[in-house]
Amino acid sequence: MQKTFELLAIDRHSKARCGRLTSAHGEIDTPVFMPVGTQGSVKGVSPRELRELRAQIVLGNTYHLFVRPGLDVIKHFGGLHNFMNWSGPILTDSGGYQIFSLAKLRKITEEGVEFQNHIDGARAFISPEVVMEIQLLLGSDITMALDECVPYPCKYDYAAQSAEMTTRWARRCREWKRRNCETAKRGFVDSMLFGIVQGATFEELRKESAQAIVDLDFDGYAIGGVSVGEPEEEMMRAVEWAEPILPANKPRYAMGLGTPPQLLELIARGVDMFDCVLPTRLARNGTAFTATGTVNLKNAEFILDKNPIEENCACEACREFSRGYIRHLIKTEEILGLRLITLHNLHFYLTLMNQSRAEIEKGTFDQFRKAFVTEYKTRDAVTVE
Amino acid sequence: MQKTFELLAIDRHSKARCGRLTSAHGEIDTPVFMPVGTQGSVKGVSPRELRELRAQIVLGNTYHLFVRPGLDVIKHFGGLHNFMNWSGPILTDSGGYQIFSLAKLRKITEEGVEFQNHIDGARAFISPEVVMEIQLLLGSDITMALDECVPYPCKYDYAAQSAEMTTRWARRCREWKRRNCETAKRGFVDSMLFGIVQGATFEELRKESAQAIVDLDFDGYAIGGVSVGEPEEEMMRAVEWAEPILPANKPRYAMGLGTPPQLLELIARGVDMFDCVLPTRLARNGTAFTATGTVNLKNAEFILDKNPIEENCACEACREFSRGYIRHLIKTEEILGLRLITLHNLHFYLTLMNQSRAEIEKGTFDQFRKAFVTEYKTRDAVTVE
Repeated sequence: MQKTFELLAIDRHSKARCGRLTSAHGEIDTPVFMPVGTQGSVKGVSPRELRELRAQIVLGNTYHLFVRPGLDVIKHFGGLHNFMNWSGPILTDSGGYQIFSLAKLRKITEEGVEFQNHIDGARAFISPEVVMEIQLLLGSDITMALDECVPYPCKYDYAAQSAEMTTRWARRCREWKRRNCETAKRGFVDSMLFGIVQGATFEELRKESAQAIVDLDFDGYAIGGVSVGEPEEEMMRAVEWAEPILPANKPRYAMGLGTPPQLLELIARGVDMFDCVLPTRLARNGTAFTATGTVNLKNAEFILDKNPIEENCACEACREFSRGYIRHLIKTEEILGLRLITLHNLHFYLTLMNQSRAEIEKGTFDQFRKAFVTEYKTRDAVTVE
Repeated sequence: MQKTFELLAIDRHSKARCGRLTSAHGEIDTPVFMPVGTQGSVKGVSPRELRELRAQIVLGNTYHLFVRPGLDVIKHFGGLHNFMNWSGPILTDSGGYQIFSLAKLRKITEEGVEFQNHIDGARAFISPEVVMEIQLLLGSDITMALDECVPYPCKYDYAAQSAEMTTRWARRCREWKRRNCETAKRGFVDSMLFGIVQGATFEELRKESAQAIVDLDFDGYAIGGVSVGEPEEEMMRAVEWAEPILPANKPRYAMGLGTPPQLLELIARGVDMFDCVLPTRLARNGTAFTATGTVNLKNAEFILDKNPIEENCACEACREFSRGYIRHLIKTEEILGLRLITLHNLHFYLTLMNQSRAEIEKGTFDQFRKAFVTEYKTRDAVTVE
């Protein structure tokens, strides 16, 4: 019943769509940006501030939560929602991406992945079945199948074998969930399961992977293996190859992306959901997003600047503080500085999604996208940072 | 007109008092705790949160603001209130304490202090006249005279000479302000000037210093040279020696103090105003204040603890989050962790002052103080942290 995605509007000039995804913890209007709460907290931001920002859903990282505080702790607290005091929807990844990229030692076999974590080196083993059980213990509204995210660049043969294994792992996730949840025996919260398309930079593999994953019938479809260091054209192509194969009545999620112009370009290519650490990570370095590009508030040009980060921005940082003051906070390493830029950057990303939905509904998304991308790139080209 | 202190209630069993200090930026009910905003920000907390905590006044550190962002910047922004977006009262210290304890090189003469700052080693010179001008440029509601804060322990002869110089410096501050402000020629905001009693651990010197400073007629009186590593008994004695000499109709401020029981003991000895970095500094290490003593939330005992930091505490951290979750945030170095403990600790200190005022007005402060100190110390004695 609750696992529904409703398409509300489709752009006439692009593949952009507006939709509404209904989860156990509330509705999500798409296109949507999901702030990243790696370790059970969106860095620097409280749940109350997330509500004030009107964030609709946050992302949790299964690997990080598995390592700290550990599943027993989160189970004791009744799931991740209760633990972090966030009553809205939560999407968790499978943990695969972090295990492949962060963990000290890892050994991949058909059965799963053995690894040592980056904190105390403790050994652990995950499989498609294990990551499903973990995500359901976390209480995620949207769970992700275990996939292997291959690095860039990647040889064809390895990418082909890996994508096939990802499909077999996706099938095992699907089957585990069917056995354990859909009969409602285990008492898990109603959750969605998304499959992940892989295939590296190869058209044939991307299309085969998309078809194989779609054949397994998931609640939504993610495009993985992007945002791994590839050129932007490769990223766009990966989406363009998979998208026509993905069913229109299911949400599409481009994992780990991206810059503001990339988000609009991906919306135009039919993507509905995004997550990205850029707004929170760059904030900690003093970098703020604006309609004309990023600005680094550490720069001396802002010392005497009485203007807000961005004119007419409605976020708390822009309503109450000057660039000059925020620069001072960043230079003196005062925590309030990164807090304020984080609030602004998340507001920027969330507002960009609100605007996109409104423009799609009005039928003017394509002009909006072109104007935004041009303005944003112009600034990048003329500003030395 | 605005430089008034009104005594509202005096305890029958101790020297505790309730009062109201009227500053250019609003009224301050005493006893009062002033959160420390060293570099133009109370660490980890926004001005909005300070308002929600009902902080009545914040402290700014002249030395730190002088070094970064510098006076030209704060002048450009129209003073510290505007710069940091805090519309309530501000007290600034003279900068002397930091210069004597932090700055790389310093040379003290009768004229003033030459020093190199701790950031870029730039040379600067401050004198009683310079610190007055700086504090008035900052727009402080309460300015402090320049004093020499001698270390602990300190030889009698040095302490005697130093206290006499502090008196001469206090007179120069008083005279500079009279020349430059009270004729309203310079357009400074109406501000108060407090003199500082020194004299190290010597009864004779403390009393002489108090009398000499009182003879100069300030808007309020601070007891300095405490919280410099001396035993608690020495701290209490320094206050007890000076207090009978200080006029009852002016506020008294014990600089840089202290623990919650110390605050109550000092209130009982006639002190009205406090500032201390403990609630903010200890929070960053995971330490929270409770009625039964401090707890370090890093401890493993809190891993599965679903209780708030303190039962029945009305702060945001206790209303919304468990000890177990806050422990996880501290262990994983998530900023939200120190934010939440900082909010709790400031709430604890501010509430302790609210309770003290209420108990003084009811005539039950002495019982309240004894019960609090006993309960607090009991816990300290039995808890291994």
